[in-house]
Amino acid sequence: MKTSKSSGNNAILLLSCPDRKGIVASVSEFIYKNNGNIIHADQHLDSEKGIFFMRVEWELVDFKLSRQELADAFIPLAQRFEMDWDLRFSDHIPRMAIFVSKEGHCLYDLLLRHRAGELRAEIPLIISNHPDLKEVADNFGIKYLVYPIDREIKAAQEAKEIEALKAHGIEFIVLARYMQILSPEFISHFKGGIINIHHSFLPAFVGAQPYHQAHERGVKIIGATAHYVTEELDKGPIIEQDVVQVSHRDSVQDLVRKGRDMEKVVLARAVRLYLENKILVYENKTVIFD
Amino acid sequence: MKTSKSSGNNAILLLSCPDRKGIVASVSEFIYKNNGNIIHADQHLDSEKGIFFMRVEWELVDFKLSRQELADAFIPLAQRFEMDWDLRFSDHIPRMAIFVSKEGHCLYDLLLRHRAGELRAEIPLIISNHPDLKEVADNFGIKYLVYPIDREIKAAQEAKEIEALKAHGIEFIVLARYMQILSPEFISHFKGGIINIHHSFLPAFVGAQPYHQAHERGVKIIGATAHYVTEELDKGPIIEQDVVQVSHRDSVQDLVRKGRDMEKVVLARAVRLYLENKILVYENKTVIFD
Amino acid sequence: MKTSKSSGNNAILLLSCPDRKGIVASVSEFIYKNNGNIIHADQHLDSEKGIFFMRVEWELVDFKLSRQELADAFIPLAQRFEMDWDLRFSDHIPRMAIFVSKEGHCLYDLLLRHRAGELRAEIPLIISNHPDLKEVADNFGIKYLVYPIDREIKAAQEAKEIEALKAHGIEFIVLARYMQILSPEFISHFKGGIINIHHSFLPAFVGAQPYHQAHERGVKIIGATAHYVTEELDKGPIIEQDVVQVSHRDSVQDLVRKGRDMEKVVLARAVRLYLENKILVYENKTVIFD
Amino acid sequence: MKTSKSSGNNAILLLSCPDRKGIVASVSEFIYKNNGNIIHADQHLDSEKGIFFMRVEWELVDFKLSRQELADAFIPLAQRFEMDWDLRFSDHIPRMAIFVSKEGHCLYDLLLRHRAGELRAEIPLIISNHPDLKEVADNFGIKYLVYPIDREIKAAQEAKEIEALKAHGIEFIVLARYMQILSPEFISHFKGGIINIHHSFLPAFVGAQPYHQAHERGVKIIGATAHYVTEELDKGPIIEQDVVQVSHRDSVQDLVRKGRDMEKVVLARAVRLYLENKILVYENKTVIFD
Repeated sequence: MKTSKSSGNNAILLLSCPDRKGIVASVSEFIYKNNGNIIHADQHLDSEKGIFFMRVEWELVDFKLSRQELADAFIPLAQRFEMDWDLRFSDHIPRMAIFVSKEGHCLYDLLLRHRAGELRAEIPLIISNHPDLKEVADNFGIKYLVYPIDREIKAAQEAKEIEALKAHGIEFIVLARYMQILSPEFISHFKGGIINIHHSFLPAFVGAQPYHQAHERGVKIIGATAHYVTEELDKGPIIEQDVVQVSHRDSVQDLVRKGRDMEKVVLARAVRLYLENKILVYENKTVIFD
Repeated sequence: MKTSKSSGNNAILLLSCPDRKGIVASVSEFIYKNNGNIIHADQHLDSEKGIFFMRVEWELVDFKLSRQELADAFIPLAQRFEMDWDLRFSDHIPRMAIFVSKEGHCLYDLLLRHRAGELRAEIPLIISNHPDLKEVADNFGIKYLVYPIDREIKAAQEAKEIEALKAHGIEFIVLARYMQILSPEFISHFKGGIINIHHSFLPAFVGAQPYHQAHERGVKIIGATAHYVTEELDKGPIIEQDVVQVSHRDSVQDLVRKGRDMEKVVLARAVRLYLENKILVYENKTVIFD
Repeated sequence: MKTSKSSGNNAILLLSCPDRKGIVASVSEFIYKNNGNIIHADQHLDSEKGIFFMRVEWELVDFKLSRQELADAFIPLAQRFEMDWDLRFSDHIPRMAIFVSKEGHCLYDLLLRHRAGELRAEIPLIISNHPDLKEVADNFGIKYLVYPIDREIKAAQEAKEIEALKAHGIEFIVLARYMQILSPEFISHFKGGIINIHHSFLPAFVGAQPYHQAHERGVKIIGATAHYVTEELDKGPIIEQDVVQVSHRDSVQDLVRKGRDMEKVVLARAVRLYLENKILVYENKTVIFD
Repeated sequence: MKTSKSSGNNAILLLSCPDRKGIVASVSEFIYKNNGNIIHADQHLDSEKGIFFMRVEWELVDFKLSRQELADAFIPLAQRFEMDWDLRFSDHIPRMAIFVSKEGHCLYDLLLRHRAGELRAEIPLIISNHPDLKEVADNFGIKYLVYPIDREIKAAQEAKEIEALKAHGIEFIVLARYMQILSPEFISHFKGGIINIHHSFLPAFVGAQPYHQAHERGVKIIGATAHYVTEELDKGPIIEQDVVQVSHRDSVQDLVRKGRDMEKVVLARAVRLYLENKILVYENKTVIFD
């Protein structure tokens, strides 16, 4: 058999439904009878709310159904269990755009991981409200578009951004320390497809200058949070968090420096989880099938 | 539906077998057709070695088979897939003995967690090579037997220990900072049923006085390791590890003090995993279905 | 020479003052010329605000000045540098009271550490608003007073508590999961001498039921915070914090269980820092000389 | 006053000596009487061995002595206390070479931090036994010399390396995943000036392929260690360590990937400590004045 890592040809099914007997049996039987080999399966039961979640990945080599047939054939089963479901294929490489402002550490980190093969995506486009990081984009041979933002022109600039993103076939946006707030209108075009890194341990220190806030409060630990972007600022579903110890000896600048290392790692982990189809969102939370 | 936490009446199947198509489907179909409701299922594939691992837990309420029928009925399926398998029931409360020497922090911690309902076991017996901790046992109303050990009498004393353990129906032994090495003969009576806490980050600092060794080497982090006891000292399958930062300011005594907090937590987590039937051992490693 | 750990006869000076040349030289010269042997000295400079902080500990064996002479002799130096200062002696064993409600894990932990010699304090008194933990107090031979609290009788009950605390010579109060809010009047009697453990990573999840709040928000890490109690709820100077990873699999009850291990360790560390005179408070923050 | 961070003109004294009364007083008095303003001072007493350690940093603005006079003037005091001592100046920017093989993550990380101003060094030279990372060096405008190594030519190649390093005025070498063992002869030319990153939690998994060893042993945590290079392989003084959790789900390749993030951070911290003159080595251990 082949490993999930090597094979570029797997189907991944993400589903949630009211908990009932027979879900696992029915799904795995469906896969088995069509000659699929399950290589990962993970379940979660929210027993409080009676909701069942599942992620199952199987090899398509020798699978009896074509991709379209597969989706069609699954519908009756999905209806029977009232499933919300999503079918993905591991050989689909999402097209991803990165938004940045002036700080380049997260951008660099993502591009280096991408080059090292850690992130299975195509990155045709970097968008910024500042020209500062164009050189980085050039080094990696990626198009860099600048849309300065201020209150008056924000709507117009975002419209141009959306146009550029669509023109490049972008499915997924990563805000890699992009210091502008996206409008609800913008967000509606990429629903569930925007990940942000916030430089605090949310819900502590929402909004601007979290390291200054943390320093002012005298905390002994700082954090970073990768989350989906929703209309409410810094309130979207949390994907990944991490922390680092600080002390009274650390100035705001030290927090910024220590924080950069966390931000990079936390954002990269979240992007990786997204690209591997391991995140299922429900009720403003995430189920992470890792 | 009921949660796995509240219900005391679940079946748990732990299995490993060569990887093939249809394992998940067959197992879940087996449960479903007998009217079981799966509340947890977790799989792991060691794709290097082609071995598949699974833990599945389902409710026995309304299950069509009695426990004995269940085991019998599963045999053909197990044979078909060449499974190593183990069937357990969540209402079985294992009888556990704790071995200690002079240091009581792990003992106290286990007894308090037990009293708080964190550990589903009966603890009828504490065995020690020293009388020091008898008072703790008395406080918790547990029998405390003392078997001093030295080279000449070790075999004879262990024979008495084994007798006492069998007399109390002990299935599972926790070495909570027991500072004697158990003989292969002793271990053979409780194969796969002895968990030890070693006060280092194994495989670093095997053997005696690991905190002295760590201090001498000048490490910046110390650890603790909970592992199964096998004939080779400190070489058994690792269940759980954790670490804590130290510095040049820490004396050996500081390491001992900091280490105690880790040891307690690491040992308690390992015992809990054991009692919840979440550990599967193969080739001197553990698969933890957590 | 003797170590600070063994000697019970050291002087400890904690000071802060506007930063100027000569502070370290003057203080250390003062100690040296009176025949003191410095065994620890630590400084911190808040360069933003231009404030200098220092903790210095020296042996009193062969010191030329008596304790009272020492304080008097230091005054001119303190005035010259406009110091806030505090002189303490390591052989002074503070009298500490513990406040609890119904949950005993932090109480037990403190009492066991105290018995193990980790906390240099006397603990003559435990106060609670519930009778539940009396047995624990009895086991350790400590007086346990119950003052039920509700809105109408709160002021009167607190008055009785203050009386009991004064009668027992209490200098320092630890709120070990005490679930009542102390009044400003009460706090004013023990200014800078009340430490609380809050079961969240402050400033996230202030107030009641932080684990419920954390679960609702879907965080991936939970925390605990030990802080000084001030009039503003959960806003006092933070002494110590720690965190633990959680996932979508964890119910509120799991967070509570995981949180307990953190709460114990974080509170114990904070109490230990206090008892070793290693905390200096300024502007609602702490300098920890560790 | 100015902060230590902004000022490029400080003196730093690192010393160790037998513990005696008056060391802090004499050193701080020496600085004060010559009109220096201490901005950092840190001490450590190894009370077991009776050795005192100190790091003191002061501003040279308005200091009465020139640098040479300063060193001369300190000699009598150093002799009186039998000090080992080292005097450094914060405006000295060390010249550092980086050694690499084929893996570029640590190299990239160091160069990006250097560019971001985190590492106060000049980096005129990268040396490798492979040509693979030349492009990275080119991107950053740094000379890249290739010296392939095999047993027969090792001595000759090292001689050329030493020549090149001397020609470029290199004082300090960082082995950023350089997969060759340096000869004692080579090391003798840069005694105390070579830092290596080892991809395990030393002393566990010394030598080749530590991630394979870790995977084979089934550990639940992996680590990375930055240490000084001495003649004994992986046995030099440890500067910094960190760890990350792993599970049975992680293949060797996953350990390698997770390990990379640690290696970068641990090595960067160690290099930073070195460049800030915060490390004092004694008896194969480090005192870190951080």
